[in-house]
Amino acid sequence: MEIKVLGSAAGGGFPQWNCGCPNCSAVRTGSFQGKARSQAQIAVRGDSSSWFLLGASPDLRLQIENTPELHPLPGVRQSPVAGVVLTSADLDHVLGLLLLREFQPIRVFAAESIIRILREDNSFMRMMNRVPTQVQWCPTPQRAAFELDGVGNTSSGILATQLPLGKRYPAYVSDERALQLLPEEASSGLLLEHRGKRLGYFPAVGQVDDELMKTLSKLDLLLFDGTFWDEEELSRVESSGPTAQHMGHIPVGGPQGSLERLTALDIRNKVFIHVNNTNPMLNEAGPEYRQIREAGWSVAEDGWQFTL
Amino acid sequence: MEIKVLGSAAGGGFPQWNCGCPNCSAVRTGSFQGKARSQAQIAVRGDSSSWFLLGASPDLRLQIENTPELHPLPGVRQSPVAGVVLTSADLDHVLGLLLLREFQPIRVFAAESIIRILREDNSFMRMMNRVPTQVQWCPTPQRAAFELDGVGNTSSGILATQLPLGKRYPAYVSDERALQLLPEEASSGLLLEHRGKRLGYFPAVGQVDDELMKTLSKLDLLLFDGTFWDEEELSRVESSGPTAQHMGHIPVGGPQGSLERLTALDIRNKVFIHVNNTNPMLNEAGPEYRQIREAGWSVAEDGWQFTL
Repeated sequence: MEIKVLGSAAGGGFPQWNCGCPNCSAVRTGSFQGKARSQAQIAVRGDSSSWFLLGASPDLRLQIENTPELHPLPGVRQSPVAGVVLTSADLDHVLGLLLLREFQPIRVFAAESIIRILREDNSFMRMMNRVPTQVQWCPTPQRAAFELDGVGNTSSGILATQLPLGKRYPAYVSDERALQLLPEEASSGLLLEHRGKRLGYFPAVGQVDDELMKTLSKLDLLLFDGTFWDEEELSRVESSGPTAQHMGHIPVGGPQGSLERLTALDIRNKVFIHVNNTNPMLNEAGPEYRQIREAGWSVAEDGWQFTL
Repeated sequence: MEIKVLGSAAGGGFPQWNCGCPNCSAVRTGSFQGKARSQAQIAVRGDSSSWFLLGASPDLRLQIENTPELHPLPGVRQSPVAGVVLTSADLDHVLGLLLLREFQPIRVFAAESIIRILREDNSFMRMMNRVPTQVQWCPTPQRAAFELDGVGNTSSGILATQLPLGKRYPAYVSDERALQLLPEEASSGLLLEHRGKRLGYFPAVGQVDDELMKTLSKLDLLLFDGTFWDEEELSRVESSGPTAQHMGHIPVGGPQGSLERLTALDIRNKVFIHVNNTNPMLNEAGPEYRQIREAGWSVAEDGWQFTL
């Protein structure tokens, strides 16, 4: 299985358009010891030449252009992108679908509740189904494997499993709609298995329980929620900012943080991803970055790739 | 008035993600004599330090980062972007709104019909109004001037006028909804006046009539629809492609094209913008590019700026 990190930042990217926090200001002036990052986006490939996207970020157009493997062959609609797996309805995770609308035949795998939000509550999404050979919406189960296969025999041999993690739908989903949706389909982590190798993609984890610890312990590569370093990070930049927990993210640092909880697990390669612009571990000259590196973790960068 | 071209291509940009036409393939390999371009986007500034966006392209996050004048001051939500003017509900023209959602106080000027499509038919847009001090939706008249002013005394001294040009709403708008909308609000050109100087922004023009000729004849700068070179351009790349007319764009070339019709007008600076990836005038080594240059026109590039 080939895995490409097309984007590694949390929603808004790094720097974020209207943010002048110390990290964002420094990266704009070139005085930051660390890299700019686009919004979190993964692409994976198994047995076939087709690629499957994990999420569909708002930066997807540029992310595809920056990745030669995802360029189309000569002609029209000869993109190697065959499918997209969605694990939440967050805008940072789904807006990119609307950038894939040039009549491309493509499969979108997502929980039925997420498909309903996108298709029934947003007329924009009709652009994905103007012709019969365009997007196929494929409802996925929770906790049961399905194969990533695109249109026209592009079977990847990759088995994907959605693992429910959060019960809160995005703020844009109305209360009436939310009552019609399954809470366990709101936000998932993703487990991908291919020829005995296992990748975990968990960009939004509110809490780590025993079941999750067990799931993570057998991975070859873990891409884990690195959104915030601590609970109060946003409120230090802005007094009314919400806590990490309120945003649905366990912080990296501190006694209850993911670094402390997960470092002892038997995982071959541990990588933080979905890193918010305010997170001090983006600064490679700082103590937080050193701390995660010494614990055997790394911070994903745009363009990284892995082979399992 | 300062004018910045943040993006100059038609929807999808150049190259386009799933297009392997000769232009797109050549620009990807670096063998094209011409430049890549992001999707059409303009920013203007008048008397104050605030900027107003004409349209909100899907590439807006990167376009803002590429433009130091649009960077925020230290702190949060100190963006100099004070407003957005929308002239259609096309996704290429409105999706960028959803990239401006980090609680920024901002004014969106658009015809009432366009505001209805965005706000009533798309739950995503609720993200623009999570707090009271976020987006202010300002319905604009047709054919009557309104001032571009942002929240908090950021009056620009720029008078804007929406000029109705097309009666067709985007394909994603349902027939039922379209019946409730005013046809003349579907698609407009934009006239901006500041201290006696006049800018025309006309990225989607289906036909040129006498009234439009009269309007254009008094401009200091015209940014005009350069989407297609000829009627059959798309169908040559792909047999079932629609004509330029069907897409709502008058072609540049040919006896009835905009180059022939508009070149004699008394306009100080004539620039084509919103150029589709298939348009041969993108190729600076080709006869079409030479033709428009010899007629006194230019083809807008990302990063260009003008002062009127």
